[in-house]
Amino acid sequence: MTYCVGLRLNRGLVFMSDTRTNAGVDNISTFRKMHTWCKPGDRLITLLSAGNLATTQTVVSMLEEHTKAASERHPDIMEAPSMFEVARLVGATVREVIKTATDGGYQSEATFSATFILGGQVAGGSMRMFLIYPEGNFIEATEDNPFFQIGEHKYGKPILVRAYDPEMSFEMATKLLYVSFDSTLKSNLSVGLPLDLQFYERDSLTKGYEKRIQATDPYYRKISDGWSDALRTAFNSLPDFERD
Amino acid sequence: MTYCVGLRLNRGLVFMSDTRTNAGVDNISTFRKMHTWCKPGDRLITLLSAGNLATTQTVVSMLEEHTKAASERHPDIMEAPSMFEVARLVGATVREVIKTATDGGYQSEATFSATFILGGQVAGGSMRMFLIYPEGNFIEATEDNPFFQIGEHKYGKPILVRAYDPEMSFEMATKLLYVSFDSTLKSNLSVGLPLDLQFYERDSLTKGYEKRIQATDPYYRKISDGWSDALRTAFNSLPDFERD
Repeated sequence: MTYCVGLRLNRGLVFMSDTRTNAGVDNISTFRKMHTWCKPGDRLITLLSAGNLATTQTVVSMLEEHTKAASERHPDIMEAPSMFEVARLVGATVREVIKTATDGGYQSEATFSATFILGGQVAGGSMRMFLIYPEGNFIEATEDNPFFQIGEHKYGKPILVRAYDPEMSFEMATKLLYVSFDSTLKSNLSVGLPLDLQFYERDSLTKGYEKRIQATDPYYRKISDGWSDALRTAFNSLPDFERD
Repeated sequence: MTYCVGLRLNRGLVFMSDTRTNAGVDNISTFRKMHTWCKPGDRLITLLSAGNLATTQTVVSMLEEHTKAASERHPDIMEAPSMFEVARLVGATVREVIKTATDGGYQSEATFSATFILGGQVAGGSMRMFLIYPEGNFIEATEDNPFFQIGEHKYGKPILVRAYDPEMSFEMATKLLYVSFDSTLKSNLSVGLPLDLQFYERDSLTKGYEKRIQATDPYYRKISDGWSDALRTAFNSLPDFERD
């Protein structure tokens, strides 16, 4: 499994992803699920992926190849005129990769499905974030629906719903994501450290702060331990039940 | 969907279940998912159910029928010599009902699966709680694994893991279940009020306190509103992230 979140704040975007992939619980590995393409002053594109690793790696590699060997037959996310067009290109690539894997040949029981969060900005356009489905279609984050989660989203959702605020600072949003990831890591073995964190500041058109968070990260330990205590304190602060 | 929890405390058992059933989001109904058989001084048996409604209702009806018209061919949960034998009877009934529904005849795309939490005590034995699978086999709650959840278990699990304590009072355990159910209700439309609550006091061999919790229940409102505030306070109490 996987857990990735993209948060849309008024001041920018915050991305966080885990790095665990597994084929059964006895075969786990670490792979980066956050990929960024940047041409400072022109565009910043970040892609988070969940799902079948062969699919997500092929999608990323194909997008990458096309930026290197531009040709008429392969539209390139580094040349696309808008984030909307970038989303269409990613969607078309996902569709193509899944179609190739499932079209005849050896029939596997594995599913080749994959889902992506795409965020960023292209010069001349506004900052946008999309959720791209395995079918290649997509939806955009809005004020009513300002964050996307992919992978194991249930454990970490309640705190996002309750504490998210579009006016949050990047630091506050990071704290929120740490808590959301900690709840998920504690409940699902197939989501694992290290985590990747990245900020995008609106209209900066370049890569913002980024960090890889290891299990030994002191702030991660503080949040993980502190959140257990804080939850228990919160629970104790509620009024007690009385039998009627 | 459904959400049901059975908590094993040192002083007894606490059960809570929702009442929503749905066939698609446009067809929802209210059905009781908590069933109790009691012969004071001899036994108390409580069964919580999740899964296909036709399966769970048939299982409950068959168990019920057998208690009324005892015959040699139909062993009876009210006569079984131990909770372990009660669990075997329930398991065998589940297996029989699912086998009948899937064995030939019209092939539906619906799944007939169902899962149960069974708890209680039979005179001469100890208080026990089991999780019964659709295959009819089961596991028992232990000190290491003192509660069972069936149905939509993910949203409500983190707080159970963090705040459960085997020494808890029934009142404290009820507060914990209210919070766990509130997180689930807020996130999954297919889990709905009213809720059913029941206590079993160890060695009492009779039905304990019970209550149906409606949406207008003042304590439920207090917990639901209070938990949002308490979570935000807990979140704000954590140290802030600093870029390095």
